[in-house]
Amino acid sequence: MINIALFGLGRIGLMHGKNLMRNKNFNLKYVYDINKNLSKKIAKKLKSIPIDYPSIAFKDKTIDSIFIASTTSTHIKLILEGVKNKKTIFCEKPLDLSIKKINYCKKKISKLNPKIQLGFNRRYDPGHNFLKKELLKGKIGKLEKIIITSRDPAPPSIKYLKQSGGIFRDMMIHDFDLTRFYLDKDEPFKLVASASNISDKKFNKIKDYELATCLINSKNGVQCVITNSRHCTFGYDQRVELFGSKGMLISNNKREKETSLYSNNFTSSKSSFMNFFVERYKEAYKLQLNDLKMFITNNIKPLAQFEEGRKALIMANAAAKSLKSKKFEKLAL
Amino acid sequence: MINIALFGLGRIGLMHGKNLMRNKNFNLKYVYDINKNLSKKIAKKLKSIPIDYPSIAFKDKTIDSIFIASTTSTHIKLILEGVKNKKTIFCEKPLDLSIKKINYCKKKISKLNPKIQLGFNRRYDPGHNFLKKELLKGKIGKLEKIIITSRDPAPPSIKYLKQSGGIFRDMMIHDFDLTRFYLDKDEPFKLVASASNISDKKFNKIKDYELATCLINSKNGVQCVITNSRHCTFGYDQRVELFGSKGMLISNNKREKETSLYSNNFTSSKSSFMNFFVERYKEAYKLQLNDLKMFITNNIKPLAQFEEGRKALIMANAAAKSLKSKKFEKLAL
Amino acid sequence: MINIALFGLGRIGLMHGKNLMRNKNFNLKYVYDINKNLSKKIAKKLKSIPIDYPSIAFKDKTIDSIFIASTTSTHIKLILEGVKNKKTIFCEKPLDLSIKKINYCKKKISKLNPKIQLGFNRRYDPGHNFLKKELLKGKIGKLEKIIITSRDPAPPSIKYLKQSGGIFRDMMIHDFDLTRFYLDKDEPFKLVASASNISDKKFNKIKDYELATCLINSKNGVQCVITNSRHCTFGYDQRVELFGSKGMLISNNKREKETSLYSNNFTSSKSSFMNFFVERYKEAYKLQLNDLKMFITNNIKPLAQFEEGRKALIMANAAAKSLKSKKFEKLAL
Amino acid sequence: MINIALFGLGRIGLMHGKNLMRNKNFNLKYVYDINKNLSKKIAKKLKSIPIDYPSIAFKDKTIDSIFIASTTSTHIKLILEGVKNKKTIFCEKPLDLSIKKINYCKKKISKLNPKIQLGFNRRYDPGHNFLKKELLKGKIGKLEKIIITSRDPAPPSIKYLKQSGGIFRDMMIHDFDLTRFYLDKDEPFKLVASASNISDKKFNKIKDYELATCLINSKNGVQCVITNSRHCTFGYDQRVELFGSKGMLISNNKREKETSLYSNNFTSSKSSFMNFFVERYKEAYKLQLNDLKMFITNNIKPLAQFEEGRKALIMANAAAKSLKSKKFEKLAL
Repeated sequence: MINIALFGLGRIGLMHGKNLMRNKNFNLKYVYDINKNLSKKIAKKLKSIPIDYPSIAFKDKTIDSIFIASTTSTHIKLILEGVKNKKTIFCEKPLDLSIKKINYCKKKISKLNPKIQLGFNRRYDPGHNFLKKELLKGKIGKLEKIIITSRDPAPPSIKYLKQSGGIFRDMMIHDFDLTRFYLDKDEPFKLVASASNISDKKFNKIKDYELATCLINSKNGVQCVITNSRHCTFGYDQRVELFGSKGMLISNNKREKETSLYSNNFTSSKSSFMNFFVERYKEAYKLQLNDLKMFITNNIKPLAQFEEGRKALIMANAAAKSLKSKKFEKLAL
Repeated sequence: MINIALFGLGRIGLMHGKNLMRNKNFNLKYVYDINKNLSKKIAKKLKSIPIDYPSIAFKDKTIDSIFIASTTSTHIKLILEGVKNKKTIFCEKPLDLSIKKINYCKKKISKLNPKIQLGFNRRYDPGHNFLKKELLKGKIGKLEKIIITSRDPAPPSIKYLKQSGGIFRDMMIHDFDLTRFYLDKDEPFKLVASASNISDKKFNKIKDYELATCLINSKNGVQCVITNSRHCTFGYDQRVELFGSKGMLISNNKREKETSLYSNNFTSSKSSFMNFFVERYKEAYKLQLNDLKMFITNNIKPLAQFEEGRKALIMANAAAKSLKSKKFEKLAL
Repeated sequence: MINIALFGLGRIGLMHGKNLMRNKNFNLKYVYDINKNLSKKIAKKLKSIPIDYPSIAFKDKTIDSIFIASTTSTHIKLILEGVKNKKTIFCEKPLDLSIKKINYCKKKISKLNPKIQLGFNRRYDPGHNFLKKELLKGKIGKLEKIIITSRDPAPPSIKYLKQSGGIFRDMMIHDFDLTRFYLDKDEPFKLVASASNISDKKFNKIKDYELATCLINSKNGVQCVITNSRHCTFGYDQRVELFGSKGMLISNNKREKETSLYSNNFTSSKSSFMNFFVERYKEAYKLQLNDLKMFITNNIKPLAQFEEGRKALIMANAAAKSLKSKKFEKLAL
Repeated sequence: MINIALFGLGRIGLMHGKNLMRNKNFNLKYVYDINKNLSKKIAKKLKSIPIDYPSIAFKDKTIDSIFIASTTSTHIKLILEGVKNKKTIFCEKPLDLSIKKINYCKKKISKLNPKIQLGFNRRYDPGHNFLKKELLKGKIGKLEKIIITSRDPAPPSIKYLKQSGGIFRDMMIHDFDLTRFYLDKDEPFKLVASASNISDKKFNKIKDYELATCLINSKNGVQCVITNSRHCTFGYDQRVELFGSKGMLISNNKREKETSLYSNNFTSSKSSFMNFFVERYKEAYKLQLNDLKMFITNNIKPLAQFEEGRKALIMANAAAKSLKSKKFEKLAL
């Protein structure tokens, strides 16, 4: 049994907590949140022990892994502490909003043989992941285009948005990483971004965007397009299209039920997509935990590690910069 | 250039007339209808000569082919006359409503080397036809099930229905023939039918049905289901499913445009199916004429001949009989 | 917490056991199988107590519900015993292969206020169930046709088949019940069946069939078609089509992942369907347990009870009879 | 009857010639090509009169319309001559490769009340056109994103490519215009482009590209992505996706037949897309001619005129410029 301490009990933290509780390979020993009442409440729900200080978990020799789902600004500190205490780390995206802090951390931990898994769940999605396998098998020949569509059903709260780091660092970061996932040994080379607000003008006030698009070129010339929206009336729109010299692969949206209605004015009208990440990426979260288990017990590298978090942020930063420079920004990955 | 005389200028006759006029291989020399005014009007439209008597066409040595689209009850007489005069015949379905008359005709013409093409247009549909080719290539192994769905967008007029011979002889006859098309060297062996009226009770008055289903067994044990409806709010529903030991083939409905709408309550809502046979089987009618041309010029047998018309009627009659006997009726094909 | 005793630990019993173990509303107290070693082994897996005699469970006052997944021939006896002991019963299909025994049981328990849920899981499938709701909302007007396709990926063992009661009682029984589910207040009135063996001749030896079709008419004239196959190369084919005066509803197959491949010779080629009932009806089994819980705690009737099991067997028997009589058999439901 | 003179009898010219010949509203009086033998040959085929000099058509008072399908470099001269002679002009895209020449022409003809229709056929495609109508009806709320995918099945000859003006002016020009079609009263404001060669390195030699992507922002903030490829193994890939505040509209690819194959390893595998523009946009070409007829007879403006050709070229030029500047280029439209 693997003993886990979970830090951060907000929406994503609670989801991870439930998944850990249900998973026979893990024992969710401790839960911690800066809000002590929340800690107690959630601890009860998850049949776990609430702790008042992270240090309790770091010092407990029986704890194998630190699961970080707390506010972004706390990630690096917890990683440093966890690595120092020889814990395997699982950290939610993004690593941090400052590349300097990330690089500093990288240097600090470089000789400590760190074991850090990054929460890029989409790499584990059975559909998205299958595309990578088929690609490597040569099913579509040489990769030429990657087109990723990612639209949230509705924006998060203004409070969340304000400290999120903006659409590129908070939302598109998943797609930047997914691009790198498919590029495999190739790497993104330059990118240009654009963003705007059309329907929901509140984004203007916080200097953020509801709509964003990014065009990325890889070293080999692969052309990648990422298209994001903070709202989507028809559900959580999550699609990947890989175009190659010999074919195309698509990973499409999922629905709870495969029903269709035919009527006077239309045919084959289907139900909505799964509403959001908890449902849509349910399988992915499960497979991500399998990888964490294998990382801890057999030291098998998970699909996303510290470097994936660092490189995705470099891309997000370049996108934000491009928005101002109005030109392609080079990436040093 | 092939000279044609077209008999019968109703809905289906006019459609054939237009197709013949547009086709470079044919010269629509004469048109005839029992209604002389109609003959004149349509002749003008089709740039053809209206004739007052069929005999004019039969006696004209330059006429290669007689195209019969007149009332069902006139078919056999016109076929006999046409064969006697060495014309190649194209005859719309059904051959006749009386199997006796058909058998009499068969006997009469047997020694005259008759050339008769039957208007079973669905055999020529690019989709339905492709299924047969794939089946013969062994793509689904041994054929085990045939499931045909055929629903008209709206019923014809009561006047038409009254003299139509009923749903089995007028409508399902196409599907009986299609079943034989896929069974290839196998043959239907027995069938059982059921029929009812639920929404449109006017069919009760004329002792006909808006809904009908037929279950057919072939000599080899292939199980075939035909499901018909005289109405269908979402268009002309025309589907074929072939199930075999190694797979399945489906020929699906067609739309004018491949658009879809995603909204609050639904996703991927598509437009209606092509409304009716003129649009849905447009390509099929074209390919049917190609076969007629090859039949006339090179004596290459078309996909459906006299025997196809005769056997389909035997099946339709058995279905009507089964409705009363409430049991499987054997077929002597 | 609801205390359960599970009888029968074969494939389906084990699946139910796992589902009960994972469900927070249930405590799987006892497990029993005629094979004592199996009882012990599975008990360990399911964190349950193995019992040597069913009577232990029947006499235990803390046991709320008896879950019957043992051999068909044992069902009735266990139901009688369970009802006598005031337990809520969950029983897998079919109730029994003898309608006499079922009717005897019905009489016996009639005054004991029996609470019996039948394992017709498909009624709970989110897709199939949604169709019923839409139908009741009038989305397709009056119901006119029900077309159910059910194909297993591969046949069970000969040993299983020999004691199964044949394709109608073992397999199509699900579809007979589903037909009744959609007919709602209407009832099946007569049916005719056909069956054959084409690819897998071993079925001939045991006088059973790999392919079966059934045509059912309801009192209101609804025409229903059920098409079954014991094999299907492309997975577990599970579809329902409801056709009505104002539209059509389809519940289609489900896939693990929604990916498609486009290549030289084909476009939009998708992955296989979910392989079999455990995966395909995973959600349905979960919802079925919810109903069991509500039945026990709040006496809310589940979707399928004893009568559903009895009526489905009457239909299966009629189908088997029709196969010999080659005619429509009337149903007294 | 409208009398037409057709200039240019290459692939696209011949296609237009056939369409004109089949259309009852038009009389294809003259055909002209710089290659006199070709003129004669095609004239015979199209039942038309070959002319040795364009001037014959310009001076012929009975000629209503000049149909320009000749080499791009000849377009402007023919337009000027045609307008001077009061002919209605139909001109294939692009107007010219030089914006200077186009602006010069614009000035020259400005006071002559010119009637010029541009050959942007995609505006007439029933699918693409339907999207515009639905958009204007408010079906998806405010337009926020336009995503256009356009991939040719195979590249044209090197000879053609060399004089084509490059992928932006020759191929993507259709998509630039389509973007403007959907933006309606809004206009493109700035764009950035990228292009590369991965599989077919011959494009490097002629300094052209097989792959190109363009990101366009409109004045209102609509984000548009165009993705082009000169090859596509699975056919002519032609898709439009409009995303809005209240939904999404997609115009998808078309197939000759709607068949699907289910087998051991895959399900619902469909046939290839229609191979190329002649088949895919057959209906569009027909509707485009209807518009030409209405333009000539009733002076009803067609969907695309001279300005559409001019503005699309400005966009193509900006894309080519952006490729070098590696930044967003502003558009003065």
